[in-house]
Amino acid sequence: MKGKLISEDAQRTFAVILNTDDEAVGCLTAFAKEHRLSASQFTGLGAFRDCVLGYFDWQKKDYTRIPIEEQVEVLALVGDIALNDGEPKLHTHVVVSKADGTAHGGHLLEAHVRPTLEVIITESPTHLHRRSDPETGLALIRL
Amino acid sequence: MKGKLISEDAQRTFAVILNTDDEAVGCLTAFAKEHRLSASQFTGLGAFRDCVLGYFDWQKKDYTRIPIEEQVEVLALVGDIALNDGEPKLHTHVVVSKADGTAHGGHLLEAHVRPTLEVIITESPTHLHRRSDPETGLALIRL
Amino acid sequence: MKGKLISEDAQRTFAVILNTDDEAVGCLTAFAKEHRLSASQFTGLGAFRDCVLGYFDWQKKDYTRIPIEEQVEVLALVGDIALNDGEPKLHTHVVVSKADGTAHGGHLLEAHVRPTLEVIITESPTHLHRRSDPETGLALIRL
Repeated sequence: MKGKLISEDAQRTFAVILNTDDEAVGCLTAFAKEHRLSASQFTGLGAFRDCVLGYFDWQKKDYTRIPIEEQVEVLALVGDIALNDGEPKLHTHVVVSKADGTAHGGHLLEAHVRPTLEVIITESPTHLHRRSDPETGLALIRL
Repeated sequence: MKGKLISEDAQRTFAVILNTDDEAVGCLTAFAKEHRLSASQFTGLGAFRDCVLGYFDWQKKDYTRIPIEEQVEVLALVGDIALNDGEPKLHTHVVVSKADGTAHGGHLLEAHVRPTLEVIITESPTHLHRRSDPETGLALIRL
Repeated sequence: MKGKLISEDAQRTFAVILNTDDEAVGCLTAFAKEHRLSASQFTGLGAFRDCVLGYFDWQKKDYTRIPIEEQVEVLALVGDIALNDGEPKLHTHVVVSKADGTAHGGHLLEAHVRPTLEVIITESPTHLHRRSDPETGLALIRL
Protein backbone atom coordinates (compact mmCIF):
# COMPACT_ATOMS: atom_id res chain seq x y z
CA MET A 1 0.00 0.00 0.00
CA LYS A 2 1.07 3.55 -0.70
CA GLY A 3 -0.59 6.83 0.13
CA LYS A 4 -0.01 10.37 -1.04
CA LEU A 5 -1.34 13.75 0.04
CA ILE A 6 -2.88 15.10 -3.15
CA SER A 7 -4.51 18.27 -1.89
CA GLU A 8 -4.34 20.58 1.06
CA ASP A 9 -5.91 23.60 -0.46
CA ALA A 10 -8.40 24.54 -3.11
CA GLN A 11 -9.81 21.71 -5.16
CA ARG A 12 -11.87 22.23 -8.27
CA THR A 13 -15.31 20.67 -8.35
CA PHE A 14 -17.33 20.10 -11.50
CA ALA A 15 -20.95 19.11 -11.95
CA VAL A 16 -21.41 17.13 -15.16
CA ILE A 17 -24.93 16.34 -16.32
CA LEU A 18 -25.51 13.78 -19.05
CA ASN A 19 -28.80 13.52 -20.88
CA THR A 20 -30.82 10.90 -22.76
CA ASP A 21 -28.76 9.03 -25.38
CA ASP A 22 -25.38 10.32 -24.11
CA GLU A 23 -22.85 7.48 -23.91
CA ALA A 24 -21.44 7.80 -20.41
CA VAL A 25 -17.88 6.50 -20.79
CA GLY A 26 -17.18 8.53 -23.94
CA CYS A 27 -18.73 11.72 -22.55
CA LEU A 28 -16.89 11.60 -19.23
CA THR A 29 -13.60 10.81 -20.97
CA ALA A 30 -14.10 13.75 -23.35
CA PHE A 31 -14.87 16.02 -20.39
CA ALA A 32 -11.72 14.88 -18.57
CA LYS A 33 -9.58 15.56 -21.64
CA GLU A 34 -11.14 18.96 -22.28
CA HIS A 35 -10.43 20.05 -18.70
CA ARG A 36 -7.06 18.24 -18.43
CA LEU A 37 -8.12 16.41 -15.25
CA SER A 38 -5.15 14.54 -13.86
CA ALA A 39 -6.03 13.56 -10.29
CA SER A 40 -9.76 13.40 -9.73
CA GLN A 41 -12.47 11.28 -8.24
CA PHE A 42 -16.16 11.24 -9.04
CA THR A 43 -19.47 9.88 -7.88
CA GLY A 44 -22.76 9.92 -9.70
CA LEU A 45 -26.33 8.72 -9.88
CA GLY A 46 -29.13 8.62 -12.45
CA ALA A 47 -30.38 6.01 -14.90
CA PHE A 48 -29.33 4.08 -18.02
CA ARG A 49 -31.50 2.64 -20.78
CA ASP A 50 -28.81 0.01 -21.39
CA CYS A 51 -25.22 -0.68 -20.37
CA VAL A 52 -22.35 -3.13 -20.71
CA LEU A 53 -20.61 -4.11 -17.49
CA GLY A 54 -17.19 -5.76 -17.27
CA TYR A 55 -15.85 -8.44 -14.93
CA PHE A 56 -12.10 -8.94 -15.03
CA ASP A 57 -11.46 -12.63 -15.63
CA TRP A 58 -8.26 -13.39 -13.78
CA GLN A 59 -7.48 -16.47 -15.91
CA LYS A 60 -7.96 -14.74 -19.26
CA LYS A 61 -6.60 -11.40 -18.03
CA ASP A 62 -9.43 -9.69 -19.85
CA TYR A 63 -12.89 -8.30 -19.20
CA THR A 64 -15.94 -10.52 -19.66
CA ARG A 65 -18.74 -8.39 -21.10
CA ILE A 66 -22.08 -8.43 -19.25
CA PRO A 67 -24.71 -6.57 -21.31
CA ILE A 68 -27.82 -5.27 -19.54
CA GLU A 69 -30.52 -4.47 -22.08
CA GLU A 70 -33.09 -2.77 -19.92
CA GLN A 71 -33.73 0.48 -18.09
CA VAL A 72 -31.80 0.50 -14.79
CA GLU A 73 -31.35 2.96 -11.96
CA VAL A 74 -27.72 4.02 -11.51
CA LEU A 75 -27.26 3.67 -7.75
CA ALA A 76 -23.59 4.53 -7.51
CA LEU A 77 -21.14 5.51 -10.19
CA VAL A 78 -17.70 5.57 -8.56
CA GLY A 79 -14.54 6.44 -10.42
CA ASP A 80 -11.20 8.15 -10.55
CA ILE A 81 -9.07 9.85 -13.17
CA ALA A 82 -5.29 9.60 -13.55
CA LEU A 83 -2.86 10.28 -16.36
CA ASN A 84 -1.90 7.41 -18.66
CA ASP A 85 0.77 8.28 -21.24
CA GLY A 86 0.01 11.94 -20.56
CA GLU A 87 -3.72 11.63 -21.21
CA PRO A 88 -6.51 11.52 -18.61
CA LYS A 89 -7.78 7.94 -18.19
CA LEU A 90 -10.95 7.10 -16.30
CA HIS A 91 -11.52 4.07 -14.13
CA THR A 92 -15.24 3.69 -13.53
CA HIS A 93 -17.28 1.12 -11.64
CA VAL A 94 -21.04 1.17 -11.29
CA VAL A 95 -23.90 -0.34 -9.29
CA VAL A 96 -27.27 -0.46 -11.05
CA SER A 97 -30.69 -1.84 -10.09
CA LYS A 98 -33.39 -3.52 -12.15
CA ALA A 99 -37.19 -3.30 -11.89
CA ASP A 100 -37.25 -5.94 -9.12
CA GLY A 101 -34.77 -3.96 -7.01
CA THR A 102 -31.88 -6.41 -7.42
CA ALA A 103 -28.47 -4.79 -7.76
CA HIS A 104 -25.88 -5.61 -10.41
CA GLY A 105 -22.61 -4.04 -11.35
CA GLY A 106 -19.08 -4.12 -12.64
CA HIS A 107 -16.47 -2.12 -14.47
CA LEU A 108 -18.36 0.31 -16.72
CA LEU A 109 -17.58 -0.45 -20.36
CA GLU A 110 -20.42 1.40 -22.05
CA ALA A 111 -23.77 2.93 -21.09
CA HIS A 112 -26.54 5.01 -22.61
CA VAL A 113 -28.13 7.51 -20.28
CA ARG A 114 -31.92 7.91 -19.90
CA PRO A 115 -33.00 10.44 -18.74
CA THR A 116 -30.10 11.80 -16.68
CA LEU A 117 -26.75 11.02 -15.10
CA GLU A 118 -25.58 13.52 -12.49
CA VAL A 119 -21.86 13.34 -11.79
CA ILE A 120 -19.77 15.42 -9.39
CA ILE A 121 -16.02 15.42 -10.16
CA THR A 122 -13.50 16.69 -7.62
CA GLU A 123 -10.04 17.47 -8.93
CA SER A 124 -6.97 17.76 -6.73
CA PRO A 125 -4.13 20.09 -7.80
CA THR A 126 -1.57 17.37 -8.43
CA HIS A 127 -1.00 14.47 -10.79
CA LEU A 128 -1.70 10.78 -10.47
CA HIS A 129 -0.17 8.43 -13.01
CA ARG A 130 -1.17 5.03 -14.35
CA ARG A 131 1.40 2.56 -15.63
CA SER A 132 0.82 -0.70 -17.43
CA ASP A 133 1.08 -3.62 -15.01
CA PRO A 134 3.04 -6.51 -16.60
CA GLU A 135 1.05 -9.25 -14.79
CA THR A 136 -2.46 -8.11 -15.75
CA GLY A 137 -2.00 -5.77 -18.67
CA LEU A 138 -4.10 -3.23 -16.74
CA ALA A 139 -3.04 0.40 -16.29
CA LEU A 140 -2.73 0.78 -12.51
CA ILE A 141 -2.10 3.96 -10.51
CA ARG A 142 1.48 4.12 -9.22
CA LEU A 143 2.25 6.68 -6.50
CA MET B 1 -23.70 16.52 -21.72
CA LYS B 2 -22.86 19.73 -19.93
CA GLY B 3 -20.32 20.47 -17.25
CA LYS B 4 -19.82 23.39 -14.92
CA LEU B 5 -17.09 24.38 -12.50
CA ILE B 6 -18.94 24.69 -9.21
CA SER B 7 -16.08 25.29 -6.81
CA GLU B 8 -12.49 26.34 -6.86
CA ASP B 9 -12.11 27.41 -3.31
CA ALA B 10 -13.52 26.64 0.10
CA GLN B 11 -16.35 24.16 0.21
CA ARG B 12 -18.44 23.53 3.29
CA THR B 13 -18.62 19.99 4.59
CA PHE B 14 -21.25 18.70 7.00
CA ALA B 15 -21.43 15.48 8.94
CA VAL B 16 -25.05 14.45 9.51
CA ILE B 17 -25.77 11.55 11.82
CA LEU B 18 -29.22 9.97 11.87
CA ASN B 19 -30.33 7.69 14.69
CA THR B 20 -32.80 4.87 15.23
CA ASP B 21 -36.31 5.69 13.97
CA ASP B 22 -35.24 8.79 12.01
CA GLU B 23 -36.83 8.81 8.55
CA ALA B 24 -33.89 9.42 6.22
CA VAL B 25 -35.49 11.29 3.31
CA GLY B 26 -37.40 13.68 5.55
CA CYS B 27 -34.45 14.34 7.86
CA LEU B 28 -31.96 15.00 5.07
CA THR B 29 -34.45 17.26 3.27
CA ALA B 30 -35.05 19.23 6.47
CA PHE B 31 -31.30 19.57 7.01
CA ALA B 32 -30.81 20.83 3.44
CA LYS B 33 -33.56 23.43 3.87
CA GLU B 34 -32.27 24.57 7.26
CA HIS B 35 -28.78 25.13 5.82
CA ARG B 36 -29.99 26.41 2.43
CA LEU B 37 -27.88 23.88 0.53
CA SER B 38 -28.07 24.64 -3.17
CA ALA B 39 -25.26 22.67 -4.83
CA SER B 40 -24.18 19.69 -2.80
CA GLN B 41 -23.36 16.05 -3.02
CA PHE B 42 -23.42 13.45 -0.31
CA THR B 43 -22.42 9.89 0.47
CA GLY B 44 -23.38 7.81 3.45
CA LEU B 45 -23.43 4.41 5.09
CA GLY B 46 -25.22 2.75 8.00
CA ALA B 47 -28.31 0.59 8.35
CA PHE B 48 -32.11 0.73 7.93
CA ARG B 49 -34.77 -1.29 9.72
CA ASP B 50 -37.01 -0.89 6.66
CA CYS B 51 -37.09 1.14 3.47
CA VAL B 52 -39.03 1.75 0.27
CA LEU B 53 -37.00 1.83 -2.95
CA GLY B 54 -38.20 3.26 -6.24
CA TYR B 55 -37.66 2.09 -9.82
CA PHE B 56 -38.65 4.58 -12.50
CA ASP B 57 -40.98 2.79 -14.90
CA TRP B 58 -40.31 4.33 -18.28
CA GLN B 59 -43.72 3.31 -19.69
CA LYS B 60 -45.74 4.69 -16.78
CA LYS B 61 -43.38 7.62 -16.16
CA ASP B 62 -43.66 6.96 -12.46
CA TYR B 63 -41.83 5.17 -9.68
CA THR B 64 -42.70 1.56 -8.86
CA ARG B 65 -42.46 1.12 -5.09
CA ILE B 66 -40.27 -1.73 -3.80
CA PRO B 67 -40.72 -2.10 -0.04
CA ILE B 68 -38.01 -3.90 1.95
CA GLU B 69 -39.36 -4.91 5.34
CA GLU B 70 -36.23 -6.13 7.03
CA GLN B 71 -33.02 -4.86 8.60
CA VAL B 72 -30.49 -4.02 5.85
CA GLU B 73 -26.99 -2.62 5.76
CA VAL B 74 -26.77 0.67 3.85
CA LEU B 75 -23.75 0.09 1.62
CA ALA B 76 -23.81 3.31 -0.33
CA LEU B 77 -26.14 6.27 -0.08
CA VAL B 78 -25.32 8.56 -2.99
CA GLY B 79 -27.11 11.80 -3.65
CA ASP B 80 -27.05 15.40 -4.71
CA ILE B 81 -28.92 18.57 -3.83
CA ALA B 82 -30.05 21.29 -6.24
CA LEU B 83 -32.63 24.04 -6.11
CA ASN B 84 -36.12 23.34 -7.41
CA ASP B 85 -38.43 26.36 -7.44
CA GLY B 86 -36.03 28.02 -5.02
CA GLU B 87 -36.06 25.18 -2.50
CA PRO B 88 -33.33 22.54 -1.96
CA LYS B 89 -34.39 19.24 -3.52
CA LEU B 90 -32.55 15.98 -2.85
CA HIS B 91 -31.98 13.21 -5.34
CA THR B 92 -30.96 10.10 -3.44
CA HIS B 93 -30.13 6.57 -4.57
CA VAL B 94 -29.13 3.74 -2.28
CA VAL B 95 -27.56 0.28 -2.29
CA VAL B 96 -28.53 -1.96 0.63
CA SER B 97 -27.71 -5.58 1.54
CA LYS B 98 -29.77 -8.28 3.19
CA ALA B 99 -28.74 -11.01 5.67
CA ASP B 100 -27.56 -13.27 2.81
CA GLY B 101 -25.27 -10.54 1.44
CA THR B 102 -27.27 -9.89 -1.72
CA ALA B 103 -27.44 -6.25 -2.76
CA HIS B 104 -30.60 -4.37 -3.71
CA GLY B 105 -31.29 -0.77 -4.42
CA GLY B 106 -33.08 2.04 -6.16
CA HIS B 107 -34.23 5.61 -5.78
CA LEU B 108 -34.70 6.18 -2.05
CA LEU B 109 -38.37 6.96 -1.34
CA GLU B 110 -38.47 6.34 2.42
CA ALA B 111 -36.33 4.67 5.06
CA HIS B 112 -36.17 4.24 8.82
CA VAL B 113 -32.70 4.23 10.29
CA ARG B 114 -31.49 1.60 12.80
CA PRO B 115 -29.12 2.21 14.53
CA THR B 116 -27.24 4.86 12.53
CA LEU B 117 -26.85 6.55 9.17
CA GLU B 118 -23.62 8.54 8.74
CA VAL B 119 -23.79 11.07 5.91
CA ILE B 120 -21.12 13.50 4.73
CA ILE B 121 -22.48 16.42 2.67
CA THR B 122 -20.14 18.65 0.65
CA GLU B 123 -21.55 21.97 -0.48
CA SER B 124 -20.07 24.04 -3.29
CA PRO B 125 -20.45 27.84 -3.22
CA THR B 126 -22.70 28.09 -6.25
CA HIS B 127 -26.19 27.08 -7.31
CA LEU B 128 -27.50 24.14 -9.25
CA HIS B 129 -31.06 24.23 -10.50
CA ARG B 130 -33.60 21.55 -11.33
CA ARG B 131 -36.31 22.10 -13.91
CA SER B 132 -39.28 19.91 -14.69
CA ASP B 133 -38.56 17.77 -17.75
CA PRO B 134 -41.63 17.68 -20.05
CA GLU B 135 -40.97 14.10 -21.27
CA THR B 136 -40.64 12.40 -17.89
CA GLY B 137 -42.18 14.79 -15.41
CA LEU B 138 -38.96 14.51 -13.38
CA ALA B 139 -37.08 17.55 -12.06
CA LEU B 140 -33.68 17.31 -13.77
CA ILE B 141 -30.60 19.45 -13.16
CA ARG B 142 -30.04 21.98 -15.96
CA LEU B 143 -26.65 23.72 -16.14
CA MET C 1 -30.59 13.59 13.60
CA LYS C 2 -27.72 15.94 14.20
CA GLY C 3 -25.50 17.78 11.77
CA LYS C 4 -22.23 19.62 12.17
CA LEU C 5 -20.16 21.82 9.90
CA ILE C 6 -16.83 20.03 9.76
CA SER C 7 -15.01 22.10 7.17
CA GLU C 8 -15.22 25.46 5.52
CA ASP C 9 -11.72 25.75 4.29
CA ALA C 10 -8.86 23.58 3.19
CA GLN C 11 -9.37 19.87 3.45
CA ARG C 12 -6.61 17.35 2.99
CA THR C 13 -7.08 14.71 0.34
CA PHE C 14 -5.10 11.47 0.14
CA ALA C 15 -4.88 8.89 -2.61
CA VAL C 16 -4.20 5.45 -1.17
CA ILE C 17 -3.40 2.61 -3.55
CA LEU C 18 -3.44 -0.98 -2.33
CA ASN C 19 -1.85 -3.78 -4.29
CA THR C 20 -2.22 -7.55 -4.69
CA ASP C 21 -2.31 -9.40 -1.34
CA ASP C 22 -2.77 -6.24 0.76
CA GLU C 23 -5.47 -6.77 3.40
CA ALA C 24 -7.76 -3.77 2.95
CA VAL C 25 -9.13 -3.19 6.46
CA GLY C 26 -5.73 -3.49 8.13
CA CYS C 27 -3.97 -1.31 5.58
CA LEU C 28 -6.54 1.48 5.65
CA THR C 29 -6.60 1.44 9.47
CA ALA C 30 -2.80 1.64 9.59
CA PHE C 31 -2.87 4.54 7.13
CA ALA C 32 -5.46 6.38 9.24
CA LYS C 33 -3.38 5.93 12.39
CA GLU C 34 -0.15 7.00 10.70
CA HIS C 35 -1.78 10.22 9.45
CA ARG C 36 -3.91 10.78 12.60
CA LEU C 37 -7.12 11.05 10.55
CA SER C 38 -9.94 12.08 12.85
CA ALA C 39 -12.80 13.23 10.60
CA SER C 40 -12.61 11.75 7.15
CA GLN C 41 -14.64 10.06 4.51
CA PHE C 42 -13.48 7.84 1.68
CA THR C 43 -14.64 6.15 -1.48
CA GLY C 44 -12.82 3.54 -3.51
CA LEU C 45 -12.96 1.01 -6.32
CA GLY C 46 -10.87 -1.92 -7.52
CA ALA C 47 -11.00 -5.68 -7.01
CA PHE C 48 -10.61 -8.33 -4.30
CA ARG C 49 -9.51 -11.94 -4.65
CA ASP C 50 -11.57 -12.77 -1.54
CA CYS C 51 -13.39 -10.94 1.23
CA VAL C 52 -15.53 -11.40 4.32
CA LEU C 53 -18.66 -9.25 4.55
CA GLY C 54 -20.64 -8.60 7.70
CA TYR C 55 -24.38 -8.27 8.30
CA PHE C 56 -25.38 -6.92 11.70
CA ASP C 57 -27.86 -9.36 13.21
CA TRP C 58 -30.20 -7.24 15.27
CA GLN C 59 -31.28 -10.16 17.49
CA LYS C 60 -27.75 -11.32 18.30
CA LYS C 61 -26.29 -7.81 18.30
CA ASP C 62 -23.33 -9.12 16.37
CA TYR C 63 -22.09 -9.43 12.80
CA THR C 64 -22.87 -12.54 10.78
CA ARG C 65 -19.85 -13.34 8.61
CA ILE C 66 -20.45 -13.77 4.87
CA PRO C 67 -17.26 -15.06 3.21
CA ILE C 68 -16.86 -14.57 -0.56
CA GLU C 69 -14.14 -16.86 -1.86
CA GLU C 70 -13.80 -15.63 -5.42
CA GLN C 71 -12.43 -12.72 -7.42
CA VAL C 72 -14.90 -9.79 -7.28
CA GLU C 73 -14.97 -6.28 -8.62
CA VAL C 74 -15.15 -3.65 -5.88
CA LEU C 75 -17.91 -1.37 -7.15
CA ALA C 76 -18.10 1.03 -4.24
CA LEU C 77 -16.10 1.15 -1.05
CA VAL C 78 -17.73 3.77 1.17
CA GLY C 79 -16.46 4.66 4.59
CA ASP C 80 -15.72 7.22 7.25
CA ILE C 81 -13.16 7.69 10.00
CA ALA C 82 -13.79 9.04 13.49
CA LEU C 83 -11.92 8.86 16.78
CA ASN C 84 -12.75 6.06 19.19
CA ASP C 85 -10.95 6.28 22.54
CA GLY C 86 -8.52 8.70 20.90
CA GLU C 87 -7.64 6.37 18.01
CA PRO C 88 -8.89 6.60 14.40
CA LYS C 89 -11.59 3.99 13.78
CA LEU C 90 -12.84 3.15 10.30
CA HIS C 91 -16.40 2.26 9.38
CA THR C 92 -16.37 0.66 5.94
CA HIS C 93 -19.13 -0.76 3.77
CA VAL C 94 -18.63 -2.28 0.35
CA VAL C 95 -20.52 -3.33 -2.78
CA VAL C 96 -18.84 -6.04 -4.88
CA SER C 97 -19.88 -7.92 -8.02
CA LYS C 98 -19.30 -11.50 -9.12
CA ALA C 99 -18.60 -12.95 -12.59
CA ASP C 100 -22.34 -12.99 -13.41
CA GLY C 101 -22.69 -9.28 -12.60
CA THR C 102 -24.76 -9.78 -9.44
CA ALA C 103 -23.97 -7.36 -6.63
CA HIS C 104 -23.35 -8.32 -3.02
CA GLY C 105 -22.18 -6.38 -0.03
CA GLY C 106 -22.05 -5.58 3.63
CA HIS C 107 -19.88 -4.22 6.38
CA LEU C 108 -16.27 -4.91 5.32
CA LEU C 109 -14.63 -7.26 7.83
CA GLU C 110 -11.65 -8.42 5.78
CA ALA C 111 -10.51 -8.40 2.15
CA HIS C 112 -7.48 -9.26 0.05
CA VAL C 113 -6.84 -6.96 -2.86
CA ARG C 114 -6.07 -8.22 -6.40
CA PRO C 115 -4.73 -6.38 -8.35
CA THR C 116 -5.59 -2.91 -7.02
CA LEU C 117 -7.80 -0.90 -4.69
CA GLU C 118 -7.85 2.84 -5.34
CA VAL C 119 -9.11 4.88 -2.39
CA ILE C 120 -9.50 8.64 -2.07
CA ILE C 121 -9.69 9.89 1.53
CA THR C 122 -10.84 13.43 2.32
CA GLU C 123 -10.04 14.73 5.79
CA SER C 124 -11.79 17.68 7.38
CA PRO C 125 -9.92 19.83 9.91
CA THR C 126 -12.00 18.88 12.91
CA HIS C 127 -12.74 15.83 15.04
CA LEU C 128 -15.55 13.34 14.97
CA HIS C 129 -15.94 10.97 17.90
CA ARG C 130 -17.44 7.52 18.29
CA ARG C 131 -18.92 6.33 21.56
CA SER C 132 -20.07 2.88 22.47
CA ASP C 133 -23.85 2.58 22.12
CA PRO C 134 -25.33 0.67 25.09
CA GLU C 135 -28.16 -0.88 23.04
CA THR C 136 -26.07 -2.38 20.22
CA GLY C 137 -22.52 -2.43 21.55
CA LEU C 138 -21.49 -0.60 18.36
CA ALA C 139 -19.28 2.49 18.40
CA LEU C 140 -21.50 5.20 16.85
CA ILE C 141 -20.54 8.74 15.90
CA ARG C 142 -21.89 11.32 18.37
CA LEU C 143 -21.89 14.97 17.34
